[in-house]
Amino acid sequence: MTFEKGPGYIQAAQLLKSWDDILVICHANPDGDALGSMAGLVWGLRALGKRASWYCGDPVPPRFSYLFEGMEKQEFSPAHIVTVDVADPSLLGDAWDKFGHGIELAIDHHSTHKSFSPTSWVCPSFAATAEMVWLLLQKLRAAPSKELANSIYTGIATDTGCFRHRNTSPHALRTAAEMLELGAEAGDINQKIFGTKSRAQIQAEGLVAESMEFACQGKAALVQIPLSIYKATGATEDELGSLADMPRQVEGVLVGVTLKEKPDGKIKVGVRVNPPANAAEICGKFGGGGHAGAAGCTLAEMTMEEARQTMLAACRAYLANLA
Amino acid sequence: MTFEKGPGYIQAAQLLKSWDDILVICHANPDGDALGSMAGLVWGLRALGKRASWYCGDPVPPRFSYLFEGMEKQEFSPAHIVTVDVADPSLLGDAWDKFGHGIELAIDHHSTHKSFSPTSWVCPSFAATAEMVWLLLQKLRAAPSKELANSIYTGIATDTGCFRHRNTSPHALRTAAEMLELGAEAGDINQKIFGTKSRAQIQAEGLVAESMEFACQGKAALVQIPLSIYKATGATEDELGSLADMPRQVEGVLVGVTLKEKPDGKIKVGVRVNPPANAAEICGKFGGGGHAGAAGCTLAEMTMEEARQTMLAACRAYLANLA
Repeated sequence: MTFEKGPGYIQAAQLLKSWDDILVICHANPDGDALGSMAGLVWGLRALGKRASWYCGDPVPPRFSYLFEGMEKQEFSPAHIVTVDVADPSLLGDAWDKFGHGIELAIDHHSTHKSFSPTSWVCPSFAATAEMVWLLLQKLRAAPSKELANSIYTGIATDTGCFRHRNTSPHALRTAAEMLELGAEAGDINQKIFGTKSRAQIQAEGLVAESMEFACQGKAALVQIPLSIYKATGATEDELGSLADMPRQVEGVLVGVTLKEKPDGKIKVGVRVNPPANAAEICGKFGGGGHAGAAGCTLAEMTMEEARQTMLAACRAYLANLA
Repeated sequence: MTFEKGPGYIQAAQLLKSWDDILVICHANPDGDALGSMAGLVWGLRALGKRASWYCGDPVPPRFSYLFEGMEKQEFSPAHIVTVDVADPSLLGDAWDKFGHGIELAIDHHSTHKSFSPTSWVCPSFAATAEMVWLLLQKLRAAPSKELANSIYTGIATDTGCFRHRNTSPHALRTAAEMLELGAEAGDINQKIFGTKSRAQIQAEGLVAESMEFACQGKAALVQIPLSIYKATGATEDELGSLADMPRQVEGVLVGVTLKEKPDGKIKVGVRVNPPANAAEICGKFGGGGHAGAAGCTLAEMTMEEARQTMLAACRAYLANLA
């Protein structure tokens, strides 16, 4: 099956081929595809003999630190800047202030991508930006390595929920197969990312599950993750990241909502849906975005209770229209 | 990468090619690979114009009923009998009494396979028997269909824990990719098998998680699923099947044990491990078997408390030797 890559592919490859002293940036609050794409592109560009480094507006979560193991620090003034997995400059955190003026190329798979660079390769057919990075590096004939394979595998596995979500495509599966053959330590990565929870996490998940409420004849489910949960169990915010998927797992639920209280008082909303619901549509109404199956938005100047009421009302309105 | 299929492959293909009026049998208490391999082989043999039917010593769990949707009943006296995914005749349930004498061919991927048929194709390199069924059907040039693709996909996805377990291989991933291209409804299957829990299930999982205990400096974890849990929550035994994976998910745990009380008083033990522990070794001591990562055994004439003590002692002894 030939894969329609889109016009930006050739351009992006040509730019990267001609460049040196490259800075690769991913979005703040990075997930596995952001980090895997970023690390993968750096490993690949360096394999081509180029100088390449990376920047992220937030620290790398400890469970993803393996992506950078053995990556030597290269100090240089970037001549060219490329972003990976970034749909909107507002998601860059402080990288926008630091480097926004210099971004020349964006590589992204989000359908909600808002153009912010002179050149971009945006292709929503891909399950993960990491697939796009791999295609570019193949075109440039970068010598593969275990580190590169781990990076690309990580991006694909995380964005597909370990090949479980509906965005899992034949291309994603085949690229993962190739990464395993190139030495990707999938078993260890899967265990670390998908298969391991701390005791604090198991405890917190139990408490959060107890708060689950249903609405719209069971078609909507909502859970709250107040700051007090972290204190009560010792779990970290990062550890509870996978909770976003919990509400939609309940039979009959079309729209699952997670309300996460942040230290700055804002409420981070995660929406995960089952077809035919569309998460990006729901979050778009609040200035957020993402994908059809998974999206997010942030509610400011609201208490958790106000956020709860707001999202329940949004679910009611959305589901009434869907029927 | 050429895949070493083993000598039984050619023989098995030749037999199936020459046969008609075939009965395909899988093991009792069937899982996704047993059912997917069985349904897949029937769909494929029928696509070759042969008469083929299936038998399982236990009812098909409702969530797997889609595998047989549209499969017309064919009544005939079987001329040939083949088993799929069966490692030992004791796992056949009443199929052994009914058909054991006539089994001519066994197709299986378990390393613990005990020969019980004149011809067999046993290859532990495969993550799922379903991969082997697909290879045979390809050799026989069976016309693929969505139903066949759904069956093969189901077998591979379930036995790899949706491509998460360490048995996930490039071949498994590529075969899954091919099944998607042949029309396998992976998104729906994944949601049904891996992504949906009833409210009773969520409740039961919370209760079971609360019973989790740790031993051997946190290297062993054990949970109990007494019959009372089913009454208290309304969850069915089938719904709590995925709980076997819960104990080993906790950070630091090498050996996770699940004790499930059965209506006949026996205790079904599930063991799931992280490397370097070996589940088949632990269960082998009690007459059980399975794979390195996942295995089971049954304890009879014991109370739940005695079973708990027995397995904790077994873990202690095993982990002491492992150190």
